[in-house]
This record gives sequence, structure tokens and C-alpha cells, in this order.
Amino acid sequence: MIKLGILGSTGTIGKNALEIVKTFSQDIELIGIGAYRASEEFLYQAKNLKPRYVFSVETPSREWLNEISKYSTYLNEEEGLGVIIEHSDKILNAIAGSSGIKATYKILKAKKILLASNKESILCMPNLIRENIKHVIPVDSEHNSAFMLLEHYKDIKDLYITASGGPFRNYTLEQLKHVKKEQALQHPNWKMGPKITIDSATLMNKGLELIEASILFDIAIEHIKILIHPQSIVHAMAELISGPIISNMYAPDMKLPIQHAIFYPEKRPYLFNRLNFSNLRLDFEEPRKDVFKAIEICEWVGSMGNPYLSVLLGADDEAVNLFLQDKIGFLDIPEIIENVLSSVNFHINEDLPDILKAVNFGKEKVKKDVNMLKYKP
Amino acid sequence: MIKLGILGSTGTIGKNALEIVKTFSQDIELIGIGAYRASEEFLYQAKNLKPRYVFSVETPSREWLNEISKYSTYLNEEEGLGVIIEHSDKILNAIAGSSGIKATYKILKAKKILLASNKESILCMPNLIRENIKHVIPVDSEHNSAFMLLEHYKDIKDLYITASGGPFRNYTLEQLKHVKKEQALQHPNWKMGPKITIDSATLMNKGLELIEASILFDIAIEHIKILIHPQSIVHAMAELISGPIISNMYAPDMKLPIQHAIFYPEKRPYLFNRLNFSNLRLDFEEPRKDVFKAIEICEWVGSMGNPYLSVLLGADDEAVNLFLQDKIGFLDIPEIIENVLSSVNFHINEDLPDILKAVNFGKEKVKKDVNMLKYKP
Repeated sequence: MIKLGILGSTGTIGKNALEIVKTFSQDIELIGIGAYRASEEFLYQAKNLKPRYVFSVETPSREWLNEISKYSTYLNEEEGLGVIIEHSDKILNAIAGSSGIKATYKILKAKKILLASNKESILCMPNLIRENIKHVIPVDSEHNSAFMLLEHYKDIKDLYITASGGPFRNYTLEQLKHVKKEQALQHPNWKMGPKITIDSATLMNKGLELIEASILFDIAIEHIKILIHPQSIVHAMAELISGPIISNMYAPDMKLPIQHAIFYPEKRPYLFNRLNFSNLRLDFEEPRKDVFKAIEICEWVGSMGNPYLSVLLGADDEAVNLFLQDKIGFLDIPEIIENVLSSVNFHINEDLPDILKAVNFGKEKVKKDVNMLKYKP
Repeated sequence: MIKLGILGSTGTIGKNALEIVKTFSQDIELIGIGAYRASEEFLYQAKNLKPRYVFSVETPSREWLNEISKYSTYLNEEEGLGVIIEHSDKILNAIAGSSGIKATYKILKAKKILLASNKESILCMPNLIRENIKHVIPVDSEHNSAFMLLEHYKDIKDLYITASGGPFRNYTLEQLKHVKKEQALQHPNWKMGPKITIDSATLMNKGLELIEASILFDIAIEHIKILIHPQSIVHAMAELISGPIISNMYAPDMKLPIQHAIFYPEKRPYLFNRLNFSNLRLDFEEPRKDVFKAIEICEWVGSMGNPYLSVLLGADDEAVNLFLQDKIGFLDIPEIIENVLSSVNFHINEDLPDILKAVNFGKEKVKKDVNMLKYKP
């Protein structure tokens, strides 16, 4: 019986994870779930799956609290996070954005198994991740796929991770200037939250995943390649020094890597949607780095390490935020971030206060630059 | 130092193998080479690589013999085969067609490592192959690729092997009626001998490979799927019960699987042509079994075993032969074979005389049927 905690249960990853919990209820004990909002959906999840503990960041109403207490013990965020980590063997951190940093830190310090879906927290504490790498199982489709390959193949020349290319794959720089948030929020293959969808459109998401892969698999940035693959079926490939390229593919559905991560090193039959080869086309091309500047930013930051890693996260969080508020244009996102990175003139220790300080520096500097009217939508 | 023998050194596989020998001359000692004809090319190979022993099936001229004796000890076929097997650790059997059966039998009986490129000899002695499976390393791109996958992944739902589809991939039955040997000899991706090129055009080659995979990997025929993949870049895929599909791809070049097989379980850097992803398209579709009857014939024969396996080999050898002589039409090939199979009314033991008798039955029955003017070009 796997004792599982799920942080961020109302997000896309969290909901898919709960489907796995339900499917394999004989094998998984749901210790607790946590979410930002005390929403009806969260209430429904508790009612449906009866985790031992629940917590929300937002303070719930009296009625909501009364209702959820019929199924689970409600705790505030601080207590809830601690209790769920304490009683679980494995904790899925599917909190969105830099809000997930604290949870990863605590999971690793408690020596529990981290099912890592929050990429920000991998990126901002590379040393802690590397020290605890045996306790980290990636959940992202690309990294989970790479994990499955690198477990078996050791003579790696290059690791490839794929990118759908987002909705603007074939746009020119001129066209990208005029892109609106409504267009950027249309991801061709995956249904995800707004922050990661915008990050997919700028290819910042893929740039961050490049750094993430470098940390998780201890491979130099220059041996990790991004490939544009619009169908999102091949997720990762390992090119071996001995020649062949071993790839990992499946129909785009996050339940597969989530199920793999929950049961690893064991395996369970996959009972969901499988790939159909009856008329399948797969395309690959190199990313246009001159158009999608985020990749080169990430290649540089990945080779520099902290504090740039943490500042990048904060800066991107805030830049995407401002784009979603129509306060800056699409092409301003990488430009603002690049300027913020060039203004970093401090060092940090890899502990929670210092990391959060650097992330916050990134956010605040973006706000300041934008308020100075350097950019306009 | 690997002591290597190469049987069929003047064929496509043999020549590629000699390139590997030359590239890794520090690691490989070439014990001997054998070929059908005492040709200028064979002489050149001996001169260039100085194997300890050489043999040819055809009796050489005195001048040829004088010349080759400067570099190697010449033996007749019987002696040469025995001496090369005796002094080698690994023997590549790259003899074309059913002429390769005897060599595989002797290699396995001598408990040497068989680098298996002659598929006929795998097909006609499934029990001997299974008993010695630890001594068999497949060299065919599909089987070598599958071998690399199945070495690591154990929860196999289905194994896929790919087929280019040959030159007539999109032809209708009506169009296939009028196909000439010149058209059938044009393979889109691989340069091979005439027999295997015709077998690729009828998909008989892929059907035989299906049976071969079933024997080599001990997987039931119904769990091995053929996929049409015109680019010949993905060679094999393993769909796991746990969901993902792990695939093995590389630019079509036989040097890769040959190098892998020679050095297995060790690995060496691959120094030849690598796959370029800058503008790569991969297509997959199901084979049209109603048009290419060879697949269903092989599915049936694969599930029946011997003597059908051995009869099929002989019948296909002779049917292709007659097609190459313009004596039968393209669509007659599977029809003749099917009729021959349905006339089998005997049993065999899995020893060399019985196997060769069954192969010969297949050949002779085809000749007889064609002479009775049942078919015309």
C-alpha cells in the first residue's frame, strides 16, 4: 500500500493523479490533499476520495469547513503540509509556479519520495535535488520519459526533449509582436494552467525543462537538445554513443507518467488511452532560437546556476502575469527577463529564505521596470 | 580481442562487417572469411584484411589460388567452414538464402556465438535456436533493434517491427498484377541482394522477420505487429504493459547493428552516419494484408512451426527465382507458396538432413507446379 500525498490536487496534474488513485484504490492510500482555494471542486475531491487530511491556503468559509469535516481532517497550510509529508511515503508536488518551492524543500528535507511536477522547485535548488536524487521521480512527460530511458541506457551522447512548439510555432517575429493572450492561451496538445500555457508559447517552459533535465540527470546543458515535435507523442529520446536513438512515446495523457511515478520502481498495467499507429505522422525540427529567445536565456542560466536560476523563475512568473493582464506584449516577456538577469549582482545560499529572496528579486525587478514604462503592450 | 569469422563476406552485410573490422582493427582479429564465388572482390578482401583462412564454394582458378595464398590459407568449403568456426569466438552468418542453413547449424552445435544475419536458418530450426538463444545475437536491423529494447524492458505488451512497404506500398492488386522484376528490384531505402529485395516488395521478407522475431524473443505471433514505415528509421518498438512505447531508431545503415552484434555485450562509439533531426518526418500505417498475402501466410506458418517453416523457405526461394526469370508474375509468388504449403503431408525431425529435405520439397514442388503450366507470367 503506497501512502500518497497530493499537493495541488485541483490543478491538471492533481486531477489526473486522483484518477490514478481511484483506479488503483487497492494499492494506494490517499494520506492527504492540498489546494490553494477552498473550492467546491476541492470539497468534491475530499468527499469522493476521503483523504485523511486536507488543507487549503485560502481560509475556508464556515459552511465549507463543516462540509469537508465529514470526510477529512482539515488543517491550515502550514500544519497540513507538515502532517501530509510526515504520514506519506511519496508526495506529488503539483503546485503551480514558485508557490511550490517550499513544499519540495520540506519533502526532501524529510527524506520522503518527491514525485516532482513543480519544475520551479527543481530549478531553484539544484544542489539539494542532486543530494537527494534517489528520492526524486520526475512527473513531467519529458522528464519522466527520459527517466525511463536513462534508467537502462548509460552510454548517452545527447538527451533530446521535445516541444510541441506551441501555438506560434511558425510565426515570424513580426507576427509575434501583435499576439494577444487569447491566442497564446490556446495550446495545441495539452490542457494546462495559464502560466505554463504562456510559457509553452514563448518556449520558456521548454527552456526551463532543459535546465530541469540537466539537474535531474546530471547531463551538461550542451548535451541536452530541444526538438520541435508538433504532435507531442515522442516525449524524450536518448542518442547513444554506440549509435541508436532510443525514444519514449505515448499518446499525450499525463496519467501515464503520473502512474509510472506513483508506482516506481514497480509497474502497473496502463488502463487509459493508448497510441494508435494506424495513420500516425511524427515530425521533428530544430527550434528557431532566433525567434524564441527563451531557449538561449535558459541555456545561459542553466550553465550559470544560482542566483540566476531563482531570479529567472521570479522574473518569468511576473512577466507572464503582466502579459496576462495586457500590460506588456508577447515579445517583451523574454526581453524583460533578460534585462532583469543582467542586473543581478548578489550571491545566495541554497536555503529557503535566500532562494525566495532571489525569486522575489526577479518579480519585483520586473514590476519596477514595467512601471518605469520601459515597456508597453 | 574478438576472434571473428565472416561467412558471406562479399554480400552487403559481409562488406559492411568488413568495414567494422577495419575500423576496429585493434579490437577484432579476423579469423576467416567465406564466399560463394572465388571472385576478384573476395581476393581483394583477403589482400586487404589478411584473414587467417579463406574458403569459397566455387572452385577457384589456379591463378586466383596462387594470388590469395600470399595473404591467407585457402581451404575448400567443408574444411574452411569447420576451421573458421573452430578458431572463432563469434561467427557472422551473412550467407544469402537457404544456403546459410548448414553454417548456422554447425555454429550452434559448436557452441560458438552466432551473429545471425541469415534469417532462413533461424526460421527452419526454431528448437535449436531456442536451446542456444544465449549464443544468438540478431544482426537484422529490426531484430537487432528489438534485442536492444527487450534486453532492458520486460513488461512487453506488443513488439512492433517496421517495414518500408517496398516499392509497391500504395499499389492496388490490379497494378501489382503487371509489375515487372525491374520495378520490384528498386528498394526505396536499402541496397540489398535480389532475393531479399523481391521479398521486401512482396512483404514476404517482413513476414519471415515476424516469425524470426517470434523465435528469437519467444513472443507469440499475435503479439508481434508489422507496421509500414516508409522512412526505415524506426526499426523496432516495444509497447509496454505499463503504457509507453520504447522505440529504437537510426539512419538506415547496417553498420550500426553489425557493430552492435560484434561487440555485444560491450559497446563501441558509432563512427558512421548519424540521424539528423533538422527536418525529419516519420510515418506509420498498418500493412494491407489483403493485398500483400505473404504476411498472413507467415502468421499461419509461424504458428504451425515445422515442416511448414522449412517448406516455406524453399518454396519462396524458388518462387522468387522464377519471378526473376520472368517465368511467373508478381502476384503468383504468394499464391504458389500457399498451394505448396497446403500440399505438405509429412513430419520432420529438426536435424540438418530433414530440414534440407523439407526446404527442397518446397523448391521442387514450386518447380513442378510451374512446369505444369498452372502459372504464366
